[in-house]
Amino acid sequence: MNRTQLTTTADLTREEVDFLIKEAESMREARHTDDLKGKVVATLFFEPSTRTRLSFESAAARLGASIIGVADASTTSTKKGETLADTIQVFDKLADIVVMRQPTSGAAEEVIKYTKKPFVNGGDGANQHPSQALLDTYTIHREAGAIDGKTIAFVGDLKYGRTVHSLLYLVSLYDIKVVFVSPEELKISEKYTNLLKERGVEYEETEDLSEAVKKSDIIYMTRIQAERFEDPREYDKLKGCYILDANLVKQGKESLKVLHPLPRVDEIATDVDELPQAAYFRQVENGLYMRMGLLKYLSSNYNE
Amino acid sequence: MNRTQLTTTADLTREEVDFLIKEAESMREARHTDDLKGKVVATLFFEPSTRTRLSFESAAARLGASIIGVADASTTSTKKGETLADTIQVFDKLADIVVMRQPTSGAAEEVIKYTKKPFVNGGDGANQHPSQALLDTYTIHREAGAIDGKTIAFVGDLKYGRTVHSLLYLVSLYDIKVVFVSPEELKISEKYTNLLKERGVEYEETEDLSEAVKKSDIIYMTRIQAERFEDPREYDKLKGCYILDANLVKQGKESLKVLHPLPRVDEIATDVDELPQAAYFRQVENGLYMRMGLLKYLSSNYNE
Amino acid sequence: MNRTQLTTTADLTREEVDFLIKEAESMREARHTDDLKGKVVATLFFEPSTRTRLSFESAAARLGASIIGVADASTTSTKKGETLADTIQVFDKLADIVVMRQPTSGAAEEVIKYTKKPFVNGGDGANQHPSQALLDTYTIHREAGAIDGKTIAFVGDLKYGRTVHSLLYLVSLYDIKVVFVSPEELKISEKYTNLLKERGVEYEETEDLSEAVKKSDIIYMTRIQAERFEDPREYDKLKGCYILDANLVKQGKESLKVLHPLPRVDEIATDVDELPQAAYFRQVENGLYMRMGLLKYLSSNYNE
Repeated sequence: MNRTQLTTTADLTREEVDFLIKEAESMREARHTDDLKGKVVATLFFEPSTRTRLSFESAAARLGASIIGVADASTTSTKKGETLADTIQVFDKLADIVVMRQPTSGAAEEVIKYTKKPFVNGGDGANQHPSQALLDTYTIHREAGAIDGKTIAFVGDLKYGRTVHSLLYLVSLYDIKVVFVSPEELKISEKYTNLLKERGVEYEETEDLSEAVKKSDIIYMTRIQAERFEDPREYDKLKGCYILDANLVKQGKESLKVLHPLPRVDEIATDVDELPQAAYFRQVENGLYMRMGLLKYLSSNYNE
Repeated sequence: MNRTQLTTTADLTREEVDFLIKEAESMREARHTDDLKGKVVATLFFEPSTRTRLSFESAAARLGASIIGVADASTTSTKKGETLADTIQVFDKLADIVVMRQPTSGAAEEVIKYTKKPFVNGGDGANQHPSQALLDTYTIHREAGAIDGKTIAFVGDLKYGRTVHSLLYLVSLYDIKVVFVSPEELKISEKYTNLLKERGVEYEETEDLSEAVKKSDIIYMTRIQAERFEDPREYDKLKGCYILDANLVKQGKESLKVLHPLPRVDEIATDVDELPQAAYFRQVENGLYMRMGLLKYLSSNYNE
Repeated sequence: MNRTQLTTTADLTREEVDFLIKEAESMREARHTDDLKGKVVATLFFEPSTRTRLSFESAAARLGASIIGVADASTTSTKKGETLADTIQVFDKLADIVVMRQPTSGAAEEVIKYTKKPFVNGGDGANQHPSQALLDTYTIHREAGAIDGKTIAFVGDLKYGRTVHSLLYLVSLYDIKVVFVSPEELKISEKYTNLLKERGVEYEETEDLSEAVKKSDIIYMTRIQAERFEDPREYDKLKGCYILDANLVKQGKESLKVLHPLPRVDEIATDVDELPQAAYFRQVENGLYMRMGLLKYLSSNYNE
């Protein structure tokens, strides 16, 4: 509980996650605070991600911090041949807290070798996106009333989906059941089923979305990402394979809630948006409060 | 007078415009206030427009707000296939006020179907640019001492010029005369001459700039925009058709004032810049105060 | 000492530089102040430079200012044919202080013909980068304990290296010796050796880095910039010509300090990073405090 840097969900404890959920709840109450007054937060998005960047920036602003940032890799010194090690050693001098997104898997672990400043991995390639996983966990907690005892279905691209992988580390800290729903080509890897086994979490795998909807408390939908496929025909074959619409949602429990990390393409039909089950836009707002709590937590543990 | 969203000048009343002019004047006095302290303003420019974006951002900053923003469409989720409806439902969770520019005509009306938050259309394609029209109206008021009783000439591209169209809705709320000066190919459409007729505003159409200068109190120059022409030869033929220089300006009334939404290319010669008639750079500063007044007005009417 | 605009180091006096070094030191103590509270700083980077932009933005934020900015020329009105004169006359209405980077040599001198507002040249093409030179001078002062009496070696691209040129104007205000180390093709121009002669500064020119290391108190390394060469074979021939590694550094005085404006490619081996001689990352932090001092100084001399 004296963490100053967050690169992965793999080493977060249940105690920390519960603490951060409470922090997020208290940020929701406060709306804005002075916790980071006089601090400068750097949002270094060397791979563009407008919603994640703006969520962190809004969170930082609501904590009273100032923001400096990079929205786009195309304007940076990496083009001039600079290493990631040098880049972080420059920018950590200019900021009190660094949030970095990088297209390279493992970049966050590399970066923290060179900086002691509070640091959040804002997504590093196909590897990790821990603040997304925290806000997803917080949303499950809020929407379902609790995490323990729930059945959570993960649907879509379970092979490449970074948000699913990051989230599995967190929900598996709780007493849950998991249903994996994917086509054969995009099924969850052994790395993650082994994680669930180690942590004693029951899971099943299926290709049948309808069946999963009926038995779940939470449906976590994901987009099948064109950019992950080398062969566009493979993508075309799979992209429409799971579509959740209002009819299907209504076959589930009344208390069912649907999450999605967004953006969606067509995997959730817009007729779901009106239903109380649609939690994905509330999830965005939850992200703001969770990131406020996270920035405050990491910063408060740092002594210059 | 309980407006929270501004997408078009078409439904603004004279009462509102007069109120906003007074607000702008009081912002000029104050220079900076705490009216939006603790608020987050999102400037979402999905089509680049540096001067409009920075004007809104400076206005927001001078009201004490924090700013999050997108300067460039190329880095956003619309590329991943997201709809405008989803985009606004994400970003309105992160901000207290949204300013959006969109290349698509009608985008602003579409957007407000999905958000209740204070919203300003920062320009939607060839359609509307209401904050520009408000600052233009404010500038006419300041430079001419009043709007009632004045003759206003609109010069250049009256067919495609969005700022002219937006402005006509506002000045026609006053007791004015209008002179339209354009080549045949770029003349004002019936939609707008009908508007003037309905509102009882006298107007005339001419191709003779010199004649218009002599009888007007305000000359509103516009740039002929290359990007509006499919055939570059058509653009080349028309681009230099009206050039206002110091000699021409001096043929007008001593109290004549020249406005331009900027950027200009060569339609106003630089020898006009030194003259007291040149109001176009003061117009930029007026825009700052008008946008401060506008953001305050929309925000103060919003109850969460 | 009543300066409001800084375009070049050529007209800075020793009194001013000493004053700014003291200001930087006091900013280091304070970390953040309210000197620019309620002010808006515009960072207009019409040529991208992430580290310079973020350094100015962090400095402005730590002085309590708000920031508006352009990170990239591709989204601006110069594309629509606007002149630099018009551009500055627009943006100086929106901001209280303007920092501008421009790819064109001499752009800063052109700009200040059209604005009275506090202005800093953030780099104009191959011409000047005065805030970098100030932070370099401040770093020499801090790392060597004083500037008078020191021997400073400049290494690498002395022909095109803008930072070297800007810095020579400042260090030649002190009682120093200079060693120029470069291949024949990249040697320092007469313009700068003449400057040293006029100011009575002793200098020598050599191609031997090892010899220079032994006799110097400060080594100022530079990157050989691919973008300065029309013929890529010329670049390939010269790029690796001087590499400073830990072995070489250890041949120098124990008190030797190594500076670099960054980014580096391979001209300083990473085994130098661990040595106390490596001052280049501390130099980045010094830049933050120097820019705080500079913005405060220029702003405090301005009366609206």
